[in-house]
Amino acid sequence: MYLLDAKSKKPLYQQLYQQMRTKILSGELSAQTKLPSSRRLATELHISRNTVDTTYQQLLSEGYIVGKSRSGYYVETLPNTKFSAYADNVPDTPPSQSQPDGILYDFRYGNLSPQTFPFPQWQRLTNLCLRQDKEQFLNYSNFMGEPGLRNELVKYLHEYRDVRCTADQILITSGTIHCLMIICQLLRTVANTIAMEDPGFTAAHSTFTNYGFQVPLIPVNSHGLNVKALRTTTAQAVYVTPSHQFPTGRIMSITRRLQLIDWAYEQEALIIEDDYDCHLLYDVKPAPALQGLAPDKVIYIGSFSKILSPSLRVAYAVLPKNLVRHLQQTTKNYACSVPLLIQKPLERFLQENLFESHLRKMLRQFKKKREILLRALQEHFGDTVTISGVNAGLHILLHLNQPVSSRNLVAKAAQAGVYIHGDNLWVESSPGTTARVLLGFGAIANEDIDPAVRLLRQAWLEL
Amino acid sequence: MYLLDAKSKKPLYQQLYQQMRTKILSGELSAQTKLPSSRRLATELHISRNTVDTTYQQLLSEGYIVGKSRSGYYVETLPNTKFSAYADNVPDTPPSQSQPDGILYDFRYGNLSPQTFPFPQWQRLTNLCLRQDKEQFLNYSNFMGEPGLRNELVKYLHEYRDVRCTADQILITSGTIHCLMIICQLLRTVANTIAMEDPGFTAAHSTFTNYGFQVPLIPVNSHGLNVKALRTTTAQAVYVTPSHQFPTGRIMSITRRLQLIDWAYEQEALIIEDDYDCHLLYDVKPAPALQGLAPDKVIYIGSFSKILSPSLRVAYAVLPKNLVRHLQQTTKNYACSVPLLIQKPLERFLQENLFESHLRKMLRQFKKKREILLRALQEHFGDTVTISGVNAGLHILLHLNQPVSSRNLVAKAAQAGVYIHGDNLWVESSPGTTARVLLGFGAIANEDIDPAVRLLRQAWLEL
Repeated sequence: MYLLDAKSKKPLYQQLYQQMRTKILSGELSAQTKLPSSRRLATELHISRNTVDTTYQQLLSEGYIVGKSRSGYYVETLPNTKFSAYADNVPDTPPSQSQPDGILYDFRYGNLSPQTFPFPQWQRLTNLCLRQDKEQFLNYSNFMGEPGLRNELVKYLHEYRDVRCTADQILITSGTIHCLMIICQLLRTVANTIAMEDPGFTAAHSTFTNYGFQVPLIPVNSHGLNVKALRTTTAQAVYVTPSHQFPTGRIMSITRRLQLIDWAYEQEALIIEDDYDCHLLYDVKPAPALQGLAPDKVIYIGSFSKILSPSLRVAYAVLPKNLVRHLQQTTKNYACSVPLLIQKPLERFLQENLFESHLRKMLRQFKKKREILLRALQEHFGDTVTISGVNAGLHILLHLNQPVSSRNLVAKAAQAGVYIHGDNLWVESSPGTTARVLLGFGAIANEDIDPAVRLLRQAWLEL
Repeated sequence: MYLLDAKSKKPLYQQLYQQMRTKILSGELSAQTKLPSSRRLATELHISRNTVDTTYQQLLSEGYIVGKSRSGYYVETLPNTKFSAYADNVPDTPPSQSQPDGILYDFRYGNLSPQTFPFPQWQRLTNLCLRQDKEQFLNYSNFMGEPGLRNELVKYLHEYRDVRCTADQILITSGTIHCLMIICQLLRTVANTIAMEDPGFTAAHSTFTNYGFQVPLIPVNSHGLNVKALRTTTAQAVYVTPSHQFPTGRIMSITRRLQLIDWAYEQEALIIEDDYDCHLLYDVKPAPALQGLAPDKVIYIGSFSKILSPSLRVAYAVLPKNLVRHLQQTTKNYACSVPLLIQKPLERFLQENLFESHLRKMLRQFKKKREILLRALQEHFGDTVTISGVNAGLHILLHLNQPVSSRNLVAKAAQAGVYIHGDNLWVESSPGTTARVLLGFGAIANEDIDPAVRLLRQAWLEL
């Protein structure tokens, strides 16, 4: 018995195919059963013979039935099945994963405000790509990234970061984590231990451990990573954030940088320099990247997430020259993972020198935002908090001088309508006695800062 | 001695900073040297005192000098350096990595022709995103991908592929390799062996081995993977391409599919189903995905590279429900790696039902292209070649019935101006005695096919 609905959106042959398939999988149509001829079944079901033929062809192509010459079609002998067959009903739609309700103010780390992004320019450059790069648009691109963008990055990196490289050392990736994944694949054969800063970036830690690396944590003080402590490990690589330590916001001193490079030469080790948030310095100019001091020893990682938009998902690595060939051997037939529709506009954005004025605008906006935030914190919290990492970047670390958990502070803030991050963003060997939370001020509007800080103060009063 | 050029684009303080930095790093300005007061140095150099102050602040912030109260600035005692300091010259621009010269015809695998892509629609949807999604545009998105796109994918997958899932099982990734990287991180703790098809996709093989997995190769015959051979391994997972085996182009029969699922249940193993090229079937409708038969045992991978454009870099995984939580624990603080400017237009493309007419257009175009290709091969090669994988997808496998290397065929073709792929695209335990090359017909224009095949024939005549 087949129930066919001529009024259904689904073609008749497909209805028949699905019902026969179900009968075969369930055993209702048992192995070696001879199917009726298409003429007979068509007459029975009042449908065209063509419809039945199409159904039989489909079942035949998938191996549900076999044809025997001059005899017709038979059900195939299938393995016993202990699982359910294809369901025809549409699956449930899950609850949508929107923001938690009742959030008034957003101090989340990493997000930016729509006012900071050059939408008109980006729209023009995006449309240019859709009009001018049609051929490339339908191709897989070079695994290392678009040559044009890499050439622009060489100039940009030299000008803004004192990074020394050629375009063939640059690998363009879908964000920093993806970049670290490729680096892990590259280092797997030469290293089993990658040290990192303590406290340090959680997602980097997860990535290294997901690749099976040992990840000793090395203390950071106000000058940066403790190289003496690093020397007590067997690490063959170290992951650092010299221009803006995550999460403390400190800048690694030249002494530590030189010690670190000495270590790398002596141990034949590599430094992974994550320069994620290097542009926004409020009192002095950004310190040059470590890479410029020792291009053979540093894998440099940059990103446009903090200075353009995290939703573009563009990061890149600058590899020491001797690693480039090793990379090509490791990543056979990989394709670049950044869309052309992002690479090309970014290439032209740099080429047209639009980055410089954008950076000046960002600096102006965030200098102002930081001032407002520091003033509000002083006014509402006074000396009950200590603030670190104020001279650079898009976040500060707030130390509450009382023994309360960071998780508790985040929860209380959320109840009051303020979205902040706690210590889940960083890993740490021995959490201190004071609670710390991270306030990102990239996305919050100037006029929202004071009321948000006031709300935080109220939310935490009772703690 | 400092040489400052008032006409340079570089600000004076930056010139001074760079020259002092170089002197300190080189030891010319030795440790504990007292720097001249800013007033004195300014007078000496005929520059403003402000310029010198800015320079000193910068050197101080990076730790090159230290201030002693009421005494002035002194050069810091730095570690001995055995490496070169920052270079000021712009690095060489490397040779651009363009296509090899003299290529007339493109049979490369994976590329598509610009005529196949819905540019006007995509431009409209892209601009809509730049106008309407400004807030989200400046945020990191959910690691699993945009909820709206995942909801659309649930419907799309149910309708076109009989995949059964909810949106929270879907993970959106930057292409298939990136997807496999995440899956490797997920499986690392529960598996050390992932079997795959022989011959099989090189890039998948590299990814698995880069994560340290053992990768036994399991023979494929005309019905698909040999499950008996799979049973002789200790694999806890198997990577297969049931709807269009890569590279042979075969479709896995329902018998093999059921045997494979039986194996997965018995061994408590997982099936990784790469459904990379599932839409273009020329004689029958596409067979439903294996996932629909056993959603708990299959990690399903889909991609829009073959049916929309490889440059969009969108793939996704559908995970068994019990793996979703494990994924969240494994990928702490990872962000989604697909740009919003790709996710949102794709979401609306599916929502507005534009996919169906696009698919019909693709089928029409490629059915035609395949016919022309098969006719040209018949005319120019006749019985000297065997062709496999002709009933689906964007490539065929050409077997030359003579003992010559695939690399040789590719090189000869390139000399004649025809771009084809050899056996570097797949791994294989024992290459056969006949040479095989892969002809991708996604990018070549209809009118170019016959002359390209004619050229191939001429190029290979002498072999």
